[in-house]
Amino acid sequence: MRAAVLRGPRDLVVEQRPEPLPGRNEVLVEVRSVGVCGSDTHYYEHGRIGRFVVEAPLVLGHEASGVITAVGSGVSGDRVGQRVSIEPGVPDLTCVQCLAGRYNLCPGMRFFATPPIDGALAESVVVHAAFAHPVPDSMSDEAAALLEPLSVGIAANRKGRVTGGSRVLVTGAGPIGLMAVQTALAFGATEVVVSDVNPQRLALAERMGATLVLDARTDRLAELEVAPDVLLECSGIVRATLDGLAALDRAGRGVLVGMGSDELPLPVPLVQERELEITGTFRYAGTWPTAIALVASGRVDLDGLVTGTYGLEQSADALTVSRRDPEAVKVIVRPQD
Amino acid sequence: MRAAVLRGPRDLVVEQRPEPLPGRNEVLVEVRSVGVCGSDTHYYEHGRIGRFVVEAPLVLGHEASGVITAVGSGVSGDRVGQRVSIEPGVPDLTCVQCLAGRYNLCPGMRFFATPPIDGALAESVVVHAAFAHPVPDSMSDEAAALLEPLSVGIAANRKGRVTGGSRVLVTGAGPIGLMAVQTALAFGATEVVVSDVNPQRLALAERMGATLVLDARTDRLAELEVAPDVLLECSGIVRATLDGLAALDRAGRGVLVGMGSDELPLPVPLVQERELEITGTFRYAGTWPTAIALVASGRVDLDGLVTGTYGLEQSADALTVSRRDPEAVKVIVRPQD
Amino acid sequence: MRAAVLRGPRDLVVEQRPEPLPGRNEVLVEVRSVGVCGSDTHYYEHGRIGRFVVEAPLVLGHEASGVITAVGSGVSGDRVGQRVSIEPGVPDLTCVQCLAGRYNLCPGMRFFATPPIDGALAESVVVHAAFAHPVPDSMSDEAAALLEPLSVGIAANRKGRVTGGSRVLVTGAGPIGLMAVQTALAFGATEVVVSDVNPQRLALAERMGATLVLDARTDRLAELEVAPDVLLECSGIVRATLDGLAALDRAGRGVLVGMGSDELPLPVPLVQERELEITGTFRYAGTWPTAIALVASGRVDLDGLVTGTYGLEQSADALTVSRRDPEAVKVIVRPQD
Amino acid sequence: MRAAVLRGPRDLVVEQRPEPLPGRNEVLVEVRSVGVCGSDTHYYEHGRIGRFVVEAPLVLGHEASGVITAVGSGVSGDRVGQRVSIEPGVPDLTCVQCLAGRYNLCPGMRFFATPPIDGALAESVVVHAAFAHPVPDSMSDEAAALLEPLSVGIAANRKGRVTGGSRVLVTGAGPIGLMAVQTALAFGATEVVVSDVNPQRLALAERMGATLVLDARTDRLAELEVAPDVLLECSGIVRATLDGLAALDRAGRGVLVGMGSDELPLPVPLVQERELEITGTFRYAGTWPTAIALVASGRVDLDGLVTGTYGLEQSADALTVSRRDPEAVKVIVRPQD
Repeated sequence: MRAAVLRGPRDLVVEQRPEPLPGRNEVLVEVRSVGVCGSDTHYYEHGRIGRFVVEAPLVLGHEASGVITAVGSGVSGDRVGQRVSIEPGVPDLTCVQCLAGRYNLCPGMRFFATPPIDGALAESVVVHAAFAHPVPDSMSDEAAALLEPLSVGIAANRKGRVTGGSRVLVTGAGPIGLMAVQTALAFGATEVVVSDVNPQRLALAERMGATLVLDARTDRLAELEVAPDVLLECSGIVRATLDGLAALDRAGRGVLVGMGSDELPLPVPLVQERELEITGTFRYAGTWPTAIALVASGRVDLDGLVTGTYGLEQSADALTVSRRDPEAVKVIVRPQD
Repeated sequence: MRAAVLRGPRDLVVEQRPEPLPGRNEVLVEVRSVGVCGSDTHYYEHGRIGRFVVEAPLVLGHEASGVITAVGSGVSGDRVGQRVSIEPGVPDLTCVQCLAGRYNLCPGMRFFATPPIDGALAESVVVHAAFAHPVPDSMSDEAAALLEPLSVGIAANRKGRVTGGSRVLVTGAGPIGLMAVQTALAFGATEVVVSDVNPQRLALAERMGATLVLDARTDRLAELEVAPDVLLECSGIVRATLDGLAALDRAGRGVLVGMGSDELPLPVPLVQERELEITGTFRYAGTWPTAIALVASGRVDLDGLVTGTYGLEQSADALTVSRRDPEAVKVIVRPQD
Repeated sequence: MRAAVLRGPRDLVVEQRPEPLPGRNEVLVEVRSVGVCGSDTHYYEHGRIGRFVVEAPLVLGHEASGVITAVGSGVSGDRVGQRVSIEPGVPDLTCVQCLAGRYNLCPGMRFFATPPIDGALAESVVVHAAFAHPVPDSMSDEAAALLEPLSVGIAANRKGRVTGGSRVLVTGAGPIGLMAVQTALAFGATEVVVSDVNPQRLALAERMGATLVLDARTDRLAELEVAPDVLLECSGIVRATLDGLAALDRAGRGVLVGMGSDELPLPVPLVQERELEITGTFRYAGTWPTAIALVASGRVDLDGLVTGTYGLEQSADALTVSRRDPEAVKVIVRPQD
Repeated sequence: MRAAVLRGPRDLVVEQRPEPLPGRNEVLVEVRSVGVCGSDTHYYEHGRIGRFVVEAPLVLGHEASGVITAVGSGVSGDRVGQRVSIEPGVPDLTCVQCLAGRYNLCPGMRFFATPPIDGALAESVVVHAAFAHPVPDSMSDEAAALLEPLSVGIAANRKGRVTGGSRVLVTGAGPIGLMAVQTALAFGATEVVVSDVNPQRLALAERMGATLVLDARTDRLAELEVAPDVLLECSGIVRATLDGLAALDRAGRGVLVGMGSDELPLPVPLVQERELEITGTFRYAGTWPTAIALVASGRVDLDGLVTGTYGLEQSADALTVSRRDPEAVKVIVRPQD
């Protein structure tokens, strides 16, 4: 099979690799769609993300969907032919975190496209059967792949306890921010304010149902008429984070989703006097059933986020466009094309 | 002022009464719309509900909206002219339940149209300023009155922890059931199954977004393809309650909203083996801000539930139609007409 | 190895069986102590519990501790020699319930001494490595075995949200009730009222710290001076359950732990007017770390519950005494003696 | 009556003032014991705490107990003679925060000894009847006064969700830290590690049941054998806060109780990768019933924290000793002496 392999910064080649074999409780998936994520482009540009360094050739891609073509022992052969969305991290299932339902915090997690684990930018990939989630026929391959970033949005909204009538502020309208916006609306938020510096993304947020969009270069969060009770911070920018927290109502929750701001000068008296709750999200746990239901019911639209489609041979182009083109939202690679 | 006074079973007269004066922290409200509730019709027909007996003349009506026409001491005069929805129960505010945020369980609660407290079927009524909630101009008087039954639906959905992706079963599609349906959808439920014996109400539920409607006379809850994780029981029928609980998924929640089934033969092994949670709702607490937001944002439609409007002099007709006409959903009395 | 095998009602024989081999991720445990549980004696007397019927020879016993003597692949050999408490149910780890942290509700659960799965009344037993929990040297073999029923008490207290200052009512002072009492005290309950018909058990509850004991034959729960906010129902008696629920304060929680009352005539208005929450427990999930900490820190005393010790050959005697002797609390079988 | 009045930094005089009259729903309390708090000494030394400035003469003291000597309208005269602990902040009771059970966040809160509201360092004081909590005869006046700082400890433990088996780290063993330690133990924590620079306070923490004490000058939190799941930060020191957060287990909670660190350089990746929850406490809500139960049941010892007692005339001495004497823990003023 062919796979797009990153050998170092900006050194991506498509090469032949032996097709993997599904082991016990595993399935082999013919990959149909792979979404390009900011972490993919970061590895591509820099060869590393923080302490994770690409030291050996690495297959990128962790937002993937496809069709099961073979199963390992312990899996029903009836699953062959099933269209699935891949949950790209498989935990050890038995540690204290896993048994408590927080498997995203499993120290033994094996996650796609995180050195040294290969990802899904390939014709086929093997994954644990329980992490290959069947999707309905009505869902496109692209949407099935994008259940992964949608899961990040769901995890953020759960952490923020967004519910009917919530007033939500989303700072940063990149792909994850837009997922957070759509999920907040689907969870019943009646105010969803979005701030960003990119007018195209703000326009997209508005089309998706944001009740107010703010240009972060000129508008001020401090002037919001009604204080939000939830901040979903998706920009990774210190200034946006601090302004967002300062805008929160008493007993508000601030969820740090965006990466980038390594050190945040947190105003402790603000946290205390308003009893703010601040937390971060690390991937997701138990989100796929919800993601599937939200998309299948039409409450969340993922297809509308796709701004470009590439073949496997054009993976480098896909990675570059995803990073450089201000109009790009979600770029898709289709390994079978 | 005129008020519709119940003197005994089916003995309702409209009589002149002195206009009440707002006391400290109170406002006087000119009543614009009053929704007729099942409890009103029950008092009208039987002169009692369980241990609550109409022993002295009683003004019915607890779903009300209007305009503030005067304020008592401690309230800003700026509120005169404000359109408000009335929250019809005022607790003592300082008992353990109130201080814990569960003011609906306050033993000192004074609730409209519950003997010996008069209700709102009158030209004017006095209420605590904090329980007269301002509504936006875009909201009709009728919708403002119906925030009260909507609050019951919100309380039920909160108890059931309905959220994005929830699978909800609503048994009983009367006014409260329909409020529960709309709220469940607004909270992100992706499956809302509704059962009732009244085809008109099922049709209405379907128009409101129910994903499946079942005729309780012929369809069987046990045959649901996917087990619901929340039951909102709004029928008060023992058989419906038991079937609904039996249909629940493991870790499911059953919320007993409907009144009527005094004794439920609860299958204990079912509750244990699936770790079901069963609870009931008693009115609501802290629901008005959410109710206002849901209606103002268009997520819940209350005007579409109104099936008839009457003047104060026709209050007895309104009560009768509400009970007898199978096509009646919410009947409104407008005391100023 | 020898194992105590139940062939039918009151037909228990100790016979030679091949020693089991630990498979992948499994360990072989030399069994040191096995607590006799009510379900063991029920199978022994009747050959069945409800829909679970002993159709083939069955090894009883699911409260067990021992020493690891061999490991399967995937388990570090360093664990040989480790003293462990056995968590006797191994779920499939990957279903929706497992991934949500509710592995006790896993439909694929394989539980010791539940037909057709053999239990621990044997010289050796195999169990998943993650379900063989290391215990400190300070903990006796008996206490390590009794972490299983303690887990039931912990699960009940968690469901009841018992915390500092809670007022708890425990109906039924059998072994599980006494575990619930000790756990409630360890969780900070400041009132723990216990009712039972057995004066010896009430005396034991008092020695363990119960703040009030009631003879269920003469005392009335309705006369409690302060309403409890949590009922831990451990008797399985309909009357006790109803009286316990009726005694609860507003917003109280009733946890149905005891088995026996198949159908409970639940007073719906009570549940609604007080917004009671009623739930049941089915075994436990994630309790062993807590159980170990509570016993190791001296907050819970399990050794004091042991009223008799038997060798494997005397298993039938142990089962009989456990059921018949009113002074028996926890009877232990030591398979190596 | 006499009152100790602060006129400016270190300018405290005892002067005659007219005895206050209890208004509607209020009681007059003859003050028996007042605990000196760090905020009192801070006002005494500096005449301000942050944005709160002593601009007019101010009576200090907000940890108080006494005896009801008169009642206003709306309060039963039977309360005269009742020994009470004073909850020193009275909210407006009707704002959104109050109605949600978070009355400590009420914007209209009137709090003792916070400019311009007078405190309790006087012979008599008036307070809302619902905030004068009856205490049992077994509780000393001093303990009744110290229910206030205990409430801070309870609020912190609730925010941290401390429960049976919790592993708690308390940084800072001042009076509030010691309250947090005792509460954590009462709530069932099985490990309570305490760090401070004051050996006498560490010794006191150990006597109270701390399972490990660390000298913050030499010991390192990073070397803890078992990661705590809750940090109760009571020092207000940036270094301690950061080290404490870094020591937390995955899904751990950090509760910022101590004041002083205005800006905390929060490591965002740590918060995200471990999904830490960080929050602050602002006083307390609904803690008195729990505080009374914990002390009355003997689970928390407050009398043992008293290191000195002064008359009202010696209030300045009491304030000075409380701040300067390293052996002082809780200093008490008895206004009637």
